[in-house]
Amino acid sequence: MLAGFLDSVFRGVGQVMLQNNSYAGLVFLAGIFWNSPLFACAALTGTVVSTATAMWLGVDRQLVRAGLFGFNGSLVAIGLLYFLRPDALTWSCVVLAAACSTIVTAALMNLLSAWKVPPLTAPFVFASLCFFLATARLGRLESTHLLPTAGLPKAVSVEGTVTAGTVVEGLFNGIAQIFFQGNVVTGILFAIGLLIGSRIACTAALAGSMSGLLVAWGMGAAEPAIRAGAWGFNSALTAIALGAVFYTLDAFSFTYALLATVATTVVFAAVSAALEPLGMPALTLPFVLVVWCFLLASPLFPGLRTK
Amino acid sequence: MLAGFLDSVFRGVGQVMLQNNSYAGLVFLAGIFWNSPLFACAALTGTVVSTATAMWLGVDRQLVRAGLFGFNGSLVAIGLLYFLRPDALTWSCVVLAAACSTIVTAALMNLLSAWKVPPLTAPFVFASLCFFLATARLGRLESTHLLPTAGLPKAVSVEGTVTAGTVVEGLFNGIAQIFFQGNVVTGILFAIGLLIGSRIACTAALAGSMSGLLVAWGMGAAEPAIRAGAWGFNSALTAIALGAVFYTLDAFSFTYALLATVATTVVFAAVSAALEPLGMPALTLPFVLVVWCFLLASPLFPGLRTK
Amino acid sequence: MLAGFLDSVFRGVGQVMLQNNSYAGLVFLAGIFWNSPLFACAALTGTVVSTATAMWLGVDRQLVRAGLFGFNGSLVAIGLLYFLRPDALTWSCVVLAAACSTIVTAALMNLLSAWKVPPLTAPFVFASLCFFLATARLGRLESTHLLPTAGLPKAVSVEGTVTAGTVVEGLFNGIAQIFFQGNVVTGILFAIGLLIGSRIACTAALAGSMSGLLVAWGMGAAEPAIRAGAWGFNSALTAIALGAVFYTLDAFSFTYALLATVATTVVFAAVSAALEPLGMPALTLPFVLVVWCFLLASPLFPGLRTK
Repeated sequence: MLAGFLDSVFRGVGQVMLQNNSYAGLVFLAGIFWNSPLFACAALTGTVVSTATAMWLGVDRQLVRAGLFGFNGSLVAIGLLYFLRPDALTWSCVVLAAACSTIVTAALMNLLSAWKVPPLTAPFVFASLCFFLATARLGRLESTHLLPTAGLPKAVSVEGTVTAGTVVEGLFNGIAQIFFQGNVVTGILFAIGLLIGSRIACTAALAGSMSGLLVAWGMGAAEPAIRAGAWGFNSALTAIALGAVFYTLDAFSFTYALLATVATTVVFAAVSAALEPLGMPALTLPFVLVVWCFLLASPLFPGLRTK
Repeated sequence: MLAGFLDSVFRGVGQVMLQNNSYAGLVFLAGIFWNSPLFACAALTGTVVSTATAMWLGVDRQLVRAGLFGFNGSLVAIGLLYFLRPDALTWSCVVLAAACSTIVTAALMNLLSAWKVPPLTAPFVFASLCFFLATARLGRLESTHLLPTAGLPKAVSVEGTVTAGTVVEGLFNGIAQIFFQGNVVTGILFAIGLLIGSRIACTAALAGSMSGLLVAWGMGAAEPAIRAGAWGFNSALTAIALGAVFYTLDAFSFTYALLATVATTVVFAAVSAALEPLGMPALTLPFVLVVWCFLLASPLFPGLRTK
Repeated sequence: MLAGFLDSVFRGVGQVMLQNNSYAGLVFLAGIFWNSPLFACAALTGTVVSTATAMWLGVDRQLVRAGLFGFNGSLVAIGLLYFLRPDALTWSCVVLAAACSTIVTAALMNLLSAWKVPPLTAPFVFASLCFFLATARLGRLESTHLLPTAGLPKAVSVEGTVTAGTVVEGLFNGIAQIFFQGNVVTGILFAIGLLIGSRIACTAALAGSMSGLLVAWGMGAAEPAIRAGAWGFNSALTAIALGAVFYTLDAFSFTYALLATVATTVVFAAVSAALEPLGMPALTLPFVLVVWCFLLASPLFPGLRTK
């Protein structure tokens, strides 16, 4: 019973990078712990709450066991503690948000089931943005001042010079940022976790992060953001999803996944700018939008072999 | 013929609080009239126009008779007269918006029918926001300066002190605000109207308004907004919908509805902040989003008994 | 083979105004060329890329031949060259955006097929807005300073005086703006192209552009925008779609299409204001939203005869 629950929880952490593998989840937790014990604790709490909520609500056991009701709770918990001051109210919000992420996951599963498209990390994005936006109306909900400053988007010029260091750090930070961690070692640990889950997934994540970095660099993104991995995490997730999880890899699906990965960079820039008047971060919304779009489109493309 | 039409119209007003009951609708109209004869007149006009449009378009008689094509017209008419100067152009817009609310209702009914999810007050929200936003482009469409000022959302601190008076006024204003009325007596009349429709619905509305108020207070909302009922009307509607209308009430569905009601408070804060750069009010969008989400999720939760 | 491909491409250009007719497409291209050889070249490039992408992806030949995978590529190419500086990076973006428009078209076709609603020009709108927004994050993507300035929407007063010249220019510019062209002769050539496709479509486009202009004028829109055709192109497209393409024309469907055309003017004002904090143009989003809504609603209205 407890062993089964813990297995569901670790698979839940693993599913943040689409790995239905409890060992991958454990290594991801270790990677987070390396950078910040607080965030590791938050990730565990969020996964436990959202998984337990799903069990209380009577969700099909197989879905819960596969970690499908854990990963959004995991992310929402880290997200809230990253952007909100870690006081008692924020921890209550973590519990509420993780429970709500389970409802939103169920809602999206039902909504999207006709098209066989999964919720991905949309419940995390929606729940997190609600709590972040609420800081503008609820005085006791205090941000950590890491949220972007609200402003009107305007054209930028190229800022800073990309060096070999930028590329190496950006590559691994791009993996680490999937869990809000800006730490190269954490990124390497995440890559190892992925390797346990699937060699193709690990390769896809690295290639995706690199692709996001290179396209952003080529189009004139600011150097500090490239170094921090901001351009990598959405592309890495897109690459894992389309390159390693949903389609059987061949030359055709490789090209399809590559197109999606490049598109993710532009969509990241767009979502990030679109949320600027609200002072909100893009989170993994670009990944969700692009992968939903490419999955929805695929029934019209007979050459793609769905796994 | 006329009696049937009037019955449809009064049920339409009743459906604003999900009551398929013409007497409830009449008492709601009386409650609005107590606060403002102009708004009572608007509510009646809007309901008549949207109901008549549905009949002209040949919508199934049973749906029209149940008031399902009236309540959005009712709300859109009050909304437009609340936020736009009551001149001839605004009254023309009321007619146009009420007619369009019928089209949007039909569109959402068709769109959502596969999931057995109703349009709720989404047509009112979409139609109203269109006309309010249009004031920024069409010089003869003049606002009453009650629309929020457009600005960039930023963190707030706690403002004012909540007293017993705040709680009592906020509780009933929270019911009254469902129809844009800031008047305690109107709130009490609405509660009586609900009592005619269903004792559970009346209790749910009061509990929902109180819950919204308490959660907002606990999280540091400004006192004037709490007193005005701003935090109550969405939570009251969520509580009616999930506590009294869509599920058979038991301990499980009670907890489910309570979670939704609490979530509605955070979503209200979020939607209100998200619309701040546009200077737009949240209206009942938080209620719509939360109830859609919880209804969509419920097929995965076998313990919920749908009415 | 090549003849078939070219036929698909010209039909693709024709489908921008919902005409499955290669001669109409050729005349549209001629109209664009009259105003700007650069835009004609862009339109052709975009249509070729999006059509070829669809063929590479193995989309059903009949859909491709009807031009259904060409028109969004056509528009996205002109849009990008209108708002972004025509350098090598922008041309690469044109190719990427046209290819992506094919994916988005396929995604929306699959998503909306259950309701028999077509994607219309939504793929063009989404793809274009992504690239325009991205200029706020990617320093080498430079705008032509024709994008609206980002700001907070506020109430306007009536500006300028409408004369007979405003009406005549606005009427034809309203047709020309469907392809981003502000040129009366181009508008007349487009009307001739429509006449080749369908007399009803040509009449509907002129009536729609005129209706948009008159409603906007009556509600106090600024004279320069009316003259430039800004209020005409969405209404013209709505009128073509609902008046000439999707329903058999009779008194009932005429009234329905007229209501939609009038609603399009208000929705244009609303979308344009809603995008002001982002500094983004409304493009044909108002047409898409209104026609989707009216098509979705129509199964509940038995009097409408679908073609």
